[in-house]
Formats: sequence, C-alpha cells, structure tokens
Amino acid sequence: MPILTRDDLLDRDREDPLQRFRDAFVMPEGVLYFDGNSLGPLPKATLERIDRAIRQEWGRDLIQSWNAHGWIDLSVRTGGKIARLIGASPDEVLACDSTSVNVFKLVAAAIRLQPGRPVILSDTENFPTDLYMVQGLCGLLGGAIELRLVKEAEIEQAIDSTTALVMLTQVNYRSGRRHDMAAITAAAHRAGALVLWDLSHSTGAFPIDLHGANADLAVGCGYKYLNGGPGAPAFLYVAKRHQHAFRQPLSGWLGHDSPFMFDLDYRPAQDIRRAQSGTPPILSLIGLDAAIDLMLEVDMNAVRRKSIELSSLFMALIDEQCDGHGFTVVTPREPEQRGSQVCLRHSEGYPIVQALCARRVICDFRAADILRFGLTPLYMRFADVWDAVAILREIMQSGGWRQESFQKRAAVT
Amino acid sequence: MPILTRDDLLDRDREDPLQRFRDAFVMPEGVLYFDGNSLGPLPKATLERIDRAIRQEWGRDLIQSWNAHGWIDLSVRTGGKIARLIGASPDEVLACDSTSVNVFKLVAAAIRLQPGRPVILSDTENFPTDLYMVQGLCGLLGGAIELRLVKEAEIEQAIDSTTALVMLTQVNYRSGRRHDMAAITAAAHRAGALVLWDLSHSTGAFPIDLHGANADLAVGCGYKYLNGGPGAPAFLYVAKRHQHAFRQPLSGWLGHDSPFMFDLDYRPAQDIRRAQSGTPPILSLIGLDAAIDLMLEVDMNAVRRKSIELSSLFMALIDEQCDGHGFTVVTPREPEQRGSQVCLRHSEGYPIVQALCARRVICDFRAADILRFGLTPLYMRFADVWDAVAILREIMQSGGWRQESFQKRAAVT
Repeated sequence: MPILTRDDLLDRDREDPLQRFRDAFVMPEGVLYFDGNSLGPLPKATLERIDRAIRQEWGRDLIQSWNAHGWIDLSVRTGGKIARLIGASPDEVLACDSTSVNVFKLVAAAIRLQPGRPVILSDTENFPTDLYMVQGLCGLLGGAIELRLVKEAEIEQAIDSTTALVMLTQVNYRSGRRHDMAAITAAAHRAGALVLWDLSHSTGAFPIDLHGANADLAVGCGYKYLNGGPGAPAFLYVAKRHQHAFRQPLSGWLGHDSPFMFDLDYRPAQDIRRAQSGTPPILSLIGLDAAIDLMLEVDMNAVRRKSIELSSLFMALIDEQCDGHGFTVVTPREPEQRGSQVCLRHSEGYPIVQALCARRVICDFRAADILRFGLTPLYMRFADVWDAVAILREIMQSGGWRQESFQKRAAVT
Repeated sequence: MPILTRDDLLDRDREDPLQRFRDAFVMPEGVLYFDGNSLGPLPKATLERIDRAIRQEWGRDLIQSWNAHGWIDLSVRTGGKIARLIGASPDEVLACDSTSVNVFKLVAAAIRLQPGRPVILSDTENFPTDLYMVQGLCGLLGGAIELRLVKEAEIEQAIDSTTALVMLTQVNYRSGRRHDMAAITAAAHRAGALVLWDLSHSTGAFPIDLHGANADLAVGCGYKYLNGGPGAPAFLYVAKRHQHAFRQPLSGWLGHDSPFMFDLDYRPAQDIRRAQSGTPPILSLIGLDAAIDLMLEVDMNAVRRKSIELSSLFMALIDEQCDGHGFTVVTPREPEQRGSQVCLRHSEGYPIVQALCARRVICDFRAADILRFGLTPLYMRFADVWDAVAILREIMQSGGWRQESFQKRAAVT
C-alpha cells in the first residue's frame, strides 16, 4: 500500500491556505515547474505594472518620470520592501545591480572595516560567482587579502583572528542544505569577524531574520523566489550600525550625497544610498517591485510550513516510487537543515533532467551529478509533486532518458 | 526681416530624409522634447518586443528562455549591434551593467596593462560619475594610483610617461563641446598611454569610428541617444588587441570561460565575455536591443547632417529672437567641435527651465547655470526648434519665469 494516493494530495491542495496565490501567476498549461528557485514565474500584476511603466511613465511622461513616478528613489523604495521579507529595517536595504556586483561592494567595504585582518573565509560549496568576485578583488589588491575556502561543515572552527569576513550563501545552491545563520554569525562576532550572507536561495522561500541573527551584511537575488523577472536587480543589506563607516569602491553618482550638484569629488550619501553605483535598469526594477508587492501579501510562516510539507512529500515519494533507480537524496532530511529545494544525485543526472523537461517537468541539472527541484509554495500544488515523481518513475522504468537527444548539452543546463 | 520664417522650417521638415523615423517613436502630443540626450523616447517597436519577452519568453517558456530565446548571450549580441554604431567589431562590445560599473572595470583593467604608470588623467569637465568611480578605485588601492584632473583644453599637453590612461567623455555633458578623439588618442599612444572614451553623449548622436581612431577602451550609455529605455544597460568596448591581456576585477560568473561548470576558480572567457560580471537585467536589455535594431536602419551620416542643421538653427534663432535676455551660447559655433546639443548659460537658468517645462518645452538644467537642449534628428522637426525658441522668447519677454513655483528645486533637475 502506498503511503499516499494522488487523491489525498488533491485534498491537501483544496485545503491549502496559500492556494489563492497560484492564480496571481501566469502558469503555462501542462507544465510542472520545479525551477522557480532559478527563475520565478510571471506575476500577473507585473504585466500590468510594466505595461504602465512603459506606456505612461516612459512613453508619455518621459524624463519627468524620474521625479513624477519616483524612479529616482525606486532602488531605495523597493529595497525598503525587501527589508520586510528579511528581518531588516527599510533604511538598510537597496535594490540594485547584480548579486555579483553587490558582493564586490560589500566585501571591499568589509575589508576596509577590518584593518589587519586579511582573510575572507568561505566554503567550497558557495555559489561560484561569490567566490569569483572575491578572487577579482584579491587580484586587484595584489595579495593584501586572501580568500580561504574550507568545507561547509568546518566554517565555524576556521574563523580566527585573521578573519575579516565570513562570506556564506545561507542555502547551498546544489544540496539545499541551510547554514545556521544565527549560530555562525555569533561565532564570527566572538572572533571579531563580520559576516556577509548571500540570501539568493532564501529570500521569498522562508522567513529570514537578519536582525535576530545580528547580521552585518547581506546580498540576494531578485529573480528566484522573489519572481522579479529574468535578471531582475539584486539587493544588498548593510546593518545600520555599519553604515556610517561603510565605504564601497563602486562609488557612482547615485551613491553621492548630492548627485545633481555634479561635484568633482565623491562624497557618500548619509544613508544606505552610499551603496548605490550607477543608474538602475528601471523596467527590470519595476518588475521586481511589482513582484515584491505580491510577496508582501503572503504570510511567510505559511510559506515555510507548506515548503516543508512539499519537500518532505517529494523525498517520501522518491523513496517509495523510485527505489532501485540509483537516486540519492542529497538534501537534508531534517526540515530545519534545508531551504526550499530537493536535490537528488544520479550519475546520469544530465540526460534524466533533459527527459523530465521533455515531459514538461521543468527542473535543473547542476554539474556534476545533481538533479535540483525547487519547491515554491505560492504556486506549486501537492499534486504537482505526485505527478512529477510519477513521470520520473516512468522515465526510469522505460529507460526513456537514454535517448540520444537527451545526452547533448546546451549552453545553459 | 527675420532670417527664416516658421513656414521655411515646415518646408525643411517636409524635405527631411529622416522624417519617416519620427513615426517609429511614441511622441506625446504637444510636447517639444529637447531631452532625448538624457532619456530617449519610446520606440513603438519596443512596446511589442518587451510585451513578447514578458508574455511568451518569461511567462510561457520560463527558465528555458535562457537558451530558447538567447537570453544567455544577449549581452554579446546587443553589444555586437552597438559595435556597428561606433566603428568597432562585433566581438569587441558588450551590453551590460551601468556606465559607472563599466568605467570601473575598464580603468582597473587598464591600470593592470600599464605597470609603473600611476596616473589616470581626465578633465574637470568630465561627467562626475566617471571621476567618482576612479576615486573609488584609488581609495581601494590606497595611493597606488592617482586621478589627475586638468582643464579640458590642456589634456594633450598633460599626457606624460606617468600616464597609464587618459579617460575622457567625448562630448561634454554640459557644454556640448566635442574632443578630437583621433588626435587625443594618437597623442596618448605616442606617450605610451591608453585612452578610455566615454561615448554616452555620442552614441546614436553621430557616426563614431573607434577603429579609425585606434581607440583602446570605451563605455557608453544605452538610454540617451540610443533610446534603450530608462536605466537601460550600458555598453563597453575593449579593442581586440587588448583582450588577451585584459583582466577586470568584477569577475562574475558570466565572465567565466565555462559558467555552468561551477568551478571554484575564476578562469576568464577567451573573448569579450571576460568583461561581463553578473546576470544582466533581461527586460531592460531587450528594450535596449529593440532600440538598437531601429538605430541600425538609420544612416548615421544623415543624422549628423540634420543634427548640425538643427543645432545651427537653434543658435541662430537664439541670437535673433532672444537677444538682450542674458543668454550666452556655450556650445561651440563650429559644427566640428560639438556633439548634438546646444547649451545656453543664464544666471536664472533654473527657473527658466522650469518655466519652459511648464509650457511643455522639455529640456534640462545642469548646475550651476546651464540650460541644455538635446537635438535628436530621428524625431525632432525643424519647426520644433522654432516653436521652442518662440516660447523661450515669450517667457523672457513676459517675465513668466519669475513665478515663485519655478524657483523650487525638485530632487532631479
């Protein structure tokens, strides 16, 4: 006897307190979308917001929209909304640039706050762009600072008096394992180090409490669980207590105290704006702003509860339905130790993901051997999990993934 | 007898070989738009392109659009199109980030190409964000390099054996004065220096020949004469001969040789992609791409001819119609020495610009005392220049600009 039937899950969908939110998104017919952790779907309200921004703001009001429609401080206003999702104050967050560029700003600023401490400490499981940006900074500074990488589980014990900054992604992009933000931040502070949290796989996925963790610095992505649209601007957070001494090197005009005075010398704004650089991409930023407005209607505790139910269900069904097909569940079984995704390891992960996508179960492959399934409670149904696992089982039983066309790699996987 | 009548100008509009392009833009009824050098208007084709990108690409095809709709190399493709407007090869240009961030990348890379030369040379008339970004880099490098500013006319003689890089904006954002790109580049090269040209007030305004000038590095803006939309991504150019040795510190994953291998170590792409950092804002980038497609239909020599006619007409009418009202034409009278704008100096410039905007002549004020009028041949009519000057004359004759409401400064001017 199976642990559950599809009908049981249809019942759970009917009782789901979040079910009304699915209708807020454009969900293509017949698609089972397990990639909202990579690109969130289109909120219906975004369509209307961007259309208005293009026709009425840009098209009709032209340059005057910088004031008339508040483009000039949209990075601050959108940042202030994101603050509510991550346990920060509105004057601590800015929506701007890419996650990569924001990492560079905050690491460079942290180094400056920590004279005599040359080490940026991270783990080998961190998302590569974060490491690459620090490598770029190290190269620029010619050996004055150093990126030190240790295994994920060894971070706390690796923090010492040489550590300027601990830089971690809260949720591992491959395994879904979640760091204990409060514990690591406390350990870093005891050693005199600061911490930079990358919240790319956290924000919009579950409640985050930066103030509760006494966090110093953070960045995060706008286009994953926040549904801000492809390449939507990222965000950054600088704790109020650090803002006065905070100096970042990408000191563009929008971070100037009086950008329209056109002074020859840079003078940082008195607040979080000093973390801004150049002119933000307004249409993409408006897409993010619209998506955040939707997110602010949601009870993030309810999102977390359903996320755990979805991921627990996914793992239980994999155990039950796909036993003997060579899958290993990589994501921690304990809910407290994971984000909002389930990752499976399989030596033939790449063609299996292609076969799933061909059956319209959209998920991700992550080299070398990881199948990644994002769980997104706002628009995902319990029955979707059932259907996806049933299709995976069929593909494995029939050997359908062995088709030659599934072996060929595209540019993006 | 006036030099011209309005009817003469209506005749010129009827004979204008570029007149068909006005219909390619959304032009609000009753607005005389002299701010296309600050924010270009909305191309009609952009409306349709962005709507398709949102509904069909993001909304329907979701994550698969990175390959299916070519988002992953859109920075390269759009850059390749911009190359045709600036006399570069398609593999030398990338559309990405903001002008500010691109300045930082290229200056940092130039320093590395020029060991033993500590000076970045620029002029006091350069657009401030370019200077601010170099100041940020200088601060980060703690005195290893130095930003030296001289007067606009003294650049060539200030280049010496300590100069790593000459960094200039080709067209002065306030006066409209144009540097001689070929002459300054040649002078820099004779002294062993490189040159970084900011083409923000040039691209789309007149033909540019980076290869003809043997230029090294360049950046430029997407939202001015290119009409890419508010805050559209900027672009950067790295001459092919410098690409192999080129290393920039904002080394994000999209600049990696194999971003989806998720290596722990950054390894720059073999081509211009190494100048890329994080994920670009796709919706804003698609807006830029659509606008460039329109620009590629245009004969840039015809644009230049009409630009000179418009600016010469503007100056002649100011001389004739506004004599005695305290205006000084700041923009050079010789066409070869100017870009595509006309700037007037007036001690009461701020309230006069407000009064013009209230009469729907949209132009810019630039501190301390500059009225700036952009001339944009694709959608501007000769009669528009007549009408704008007539309104300016009325405002001056009636003293209408003295209204108290015009004195109050908004956040953006």
